[in-house]
Amino acid sequence: LASKLPNVGTTIFTVMSKLATETGAINLSQGFPGFDCSPELVSLVEKYLRNGFNQYAPMTGVPALREALAQKTFAEYNVAYDPESEVTITSGATEAIFAAVAAVVRPGDEVIVLEPAYDSYVPAIELNGGIPVYVTLTPPDYAIDWQLVSEKITDKTRLILVNTPHNPTGYVWTADYLNQLANLVRDRNIWIVSDEVYEHILFDGRKHLSLMTHPELQERTFVVGSFGKTFHVTGWKIGYCLAPKELSTEFRKIHQYLTFSTVTPIQYALADYLNEPAHYHELPDFYQRKRDLFLAGLAGSRFTFKPAEGSFFQTVSYAAITQEPDYALTIRLTKEIGVASIPISVFYNQKNDYKMIRFCFAKNDDVLIQAAERLRGL
Amino acid sequence: LASKLPNVGTTIFTVMSKLATETGAINLSQGFPGFDCSPELVSLVEKYLRNGFNQYAPMTGVPALREALAQKTFAEYNVAYDPESEVTITSGATEAIFAAVAAVVRPGDEVIVLEPAYDSYVPAIELNGGIPVYVTLTPPDYAIDWQLVSEKITDKTRLILVNTPHNPTGYVWTADYLNQLANLVRDRNIWIVSDEVYEHILFDGRKHLSLMTHPELQERTFVVGSFGKTFHVTGWKIGYCLAPKELSTEFRKIHQYLTFSTVTPIQYALADYLNEPAHYHELPDFYQRKRDLFLAGLAGSRFTFKPAEGSFFQTVSYAAITQEPDYALTIRLTKEIGVASIPISVFYNQKNDYKMIRFCFAKNDDVLIQAAERLRGL
Ligand SMILES: CSCCC(=O)C(=O)O
Ligand SMILES: CSCCC(=O)C(=O)O
Repeated sequence: LASKLPNVGTTIFTVMSKLATETGAINLSQGFPGFDCSPELVSLVEKYLRNGFNQYAPMTGVPALREALAQKTFAEYNVAYDPESEVTITSGATEAIFAAVAAVVRPGDEVIVLEPAYDSYVPAIELNGGIPVYVTLTPPDYAIDWQLVSEKITDKTRLILVNTPHNPTGYVWTADYLNQLANLVRDRNIWIVSDEVYEHILFDGRKHLSLMTHPELQERTFVVGSFGKTFHVTGWKIGYCLAPKELSTEFRKIHQYLTFSTVTPIQYALADYLNEPAHYHELPDFYQRKRDLFLAGLAGSRFTFKPAEGSFFQTVSYAAITQEPDYALTIRLTKEIGVASIPISVFYNQKNDYKMIRFCFAKNDDVLIQAAERLRGL
Repeated sequence: LASKLPNVGTTIFTVMSKLATETGAINLSQGFPGFDCSPELVSLVEKYLRNGFNQYAPMTGVPALREALAQKTFAEYNVAYDPESEVTITSGATEAIFAAVAAVVRPGDEVIVLEPAYDSYVPAIELNGGIPVYVTLTPPDYAIDWQLVSEKITDKTRLILVNTPHNPTGYVWTADYLNQLANLVRDRNIWIVSDEVYEHILFDGRKHLSLMTHPELQERTFVVGSFGKTFHVTGWKIGYCLAPKELSTEFRKIHQYLTFSTVTPIQYALADYLNEPAHYHELPDFYQRKRDLFLAGLAGSRFTFKPAEGSFFQTVSYAAITQEPDYALTIRLTKEIGVASIPISVFYNQKNDYKMIRFCFAKNDDVLIQAAERLRGL
């Protein structure tokens, strides 16, 4: 059987989490909380599990969850999506990204990928016959050069993938970026997939600028979100897509044949849980404390960094410590000092090595303190 | 946005279940149990939910579930799959079917589809650029004409989709079928996706002949199963794929980017629950009673039928009652006599109308009795 993805090996997240387990290292690699969700959310799932909500949900998601999500979206961003035709619940944000890409991309279509980029984007493009066209952002700022983006756009460009707050770098989009993007796509048949799974995790008073808040972008954007990231339940694999009716119609045709629907009792529980805004309004403070705790711990080290603007990831430069390749360094740090991280090169098509690695700080305080202590020893 | 699936409208399952709800009809249309799973299974999920098993599962599935499934498969079919490299847990059988098709099919490849066929097969083929080549089976026997299948095979044929026990017709594959298929694919680069989600639901002492039990087929087959169908939890969306290592490697590359992984606490619960074979050995008797109860009720009607050999579906001919199109009849039956069913024409590419409709008998006894009573009135 000839491989359709010949270059795909075991994902770095699997490799590093496994190595962390084998070596007993602190695992700051794969992006998942090292703590549990609220007992209240668990109780809600139990309620629906026990009361017979265990058969197929509607293909688009249970109405109560679609309505709660539409209300939350309106309250947060002042944008109205119709729960009936513009909100779809998916088996995680990964499924939503794949379905949105599949809804748009045909063989030969070009897709603009701002790299570093999350590892599922390019396979999703390639499995649909699309051609990734890379715009390379570099540390320390990862600033988008809009002139360069504009030069990469051709008649074949059909889609641009956006991610804010950004994994792995923690940067967030500005109002200027939204305008620049709107200028670029105006009058063109270009759609946008906006991965906003860290929408509730921004620091230092920043506000998330969802692409939906720009009307010219909203009408052509699939906004992807994740309940797993927001409520500390990455293992529940539940996300969503918000998009105008025309786009949602095509999105749903794909979703219907990828997974059809998503876990029913979890959907009902989230519908109830979403109705209390404190459940996500508390996230910036919660994670900023963790970021600051971790960075305070790194202050005495030879790593250099700009504090993450959003997400639960912090990238750091180790150029002042060693010139080893970033991949080799992450393996060595795991084995020798007992802290697992992710090399940033894996997020670049050409494996660009800027001597940067990523730590996930969605961990308990004692773990972050201990990891920082180990890293100071370097 | 031009549609990649222009012919896809709202699926018949959604249409009929919605109509049933709106009209208060008995819903024997969409295939899901009208009763709950065992409280023991719910308790197991609760145990893992409450004890912090809420972050990402490994991409391939939690080891305990892969091992339990490999053991069950060996006990049931005497075929050994390596849990490490040949067993993958998915977000339902629908995802597994899509991923297996995506792993094999490239633009221009031909795929043999035995119709009537479950509604996700052809979109999965088409979204991957494949060309469905139909072999049409007809009532009352839906027998496979192997000469005809052989005539449809060309140099471009890359995949054959098999489904046993069969939805919607309830027929099951024979040893002769396995041999015929093996003769056909021998020395050819043709793979097989075998949808066996009703593997535990066979009647009148029949034994499920999984394609994996034929060594020449096993080596080229992705066998797809469903915990949702077996344990009365269709809403949990959890299934799996068993395939030789080379095939599983490619399957997993797709799965990784479709959904990455599946709900963690449910995986752990199923690992425990699978270890008691009674949990699935009781299914044939359980469902045969329901089939027989329903058919006894239909005995006084003008519907004609051959009892289903497997699955939880019974197709019946209404040719002796009316010549209406089957789609129109199912709408009318729902509205006028309060029993929702599925027209068989939707499972044919050309919407062939043989005056057959499908009832799901995975319902409580009183519901089946009442539905049959209403149908006798016709
Ligand atoms: C699906 S595993 C990867 C999780 C994640 O978002 C990350 O570590 O970047
Ligand atoms: C995913 S909804 C359809 C369920 C089913 O298998 C059927 O009714 O045929």
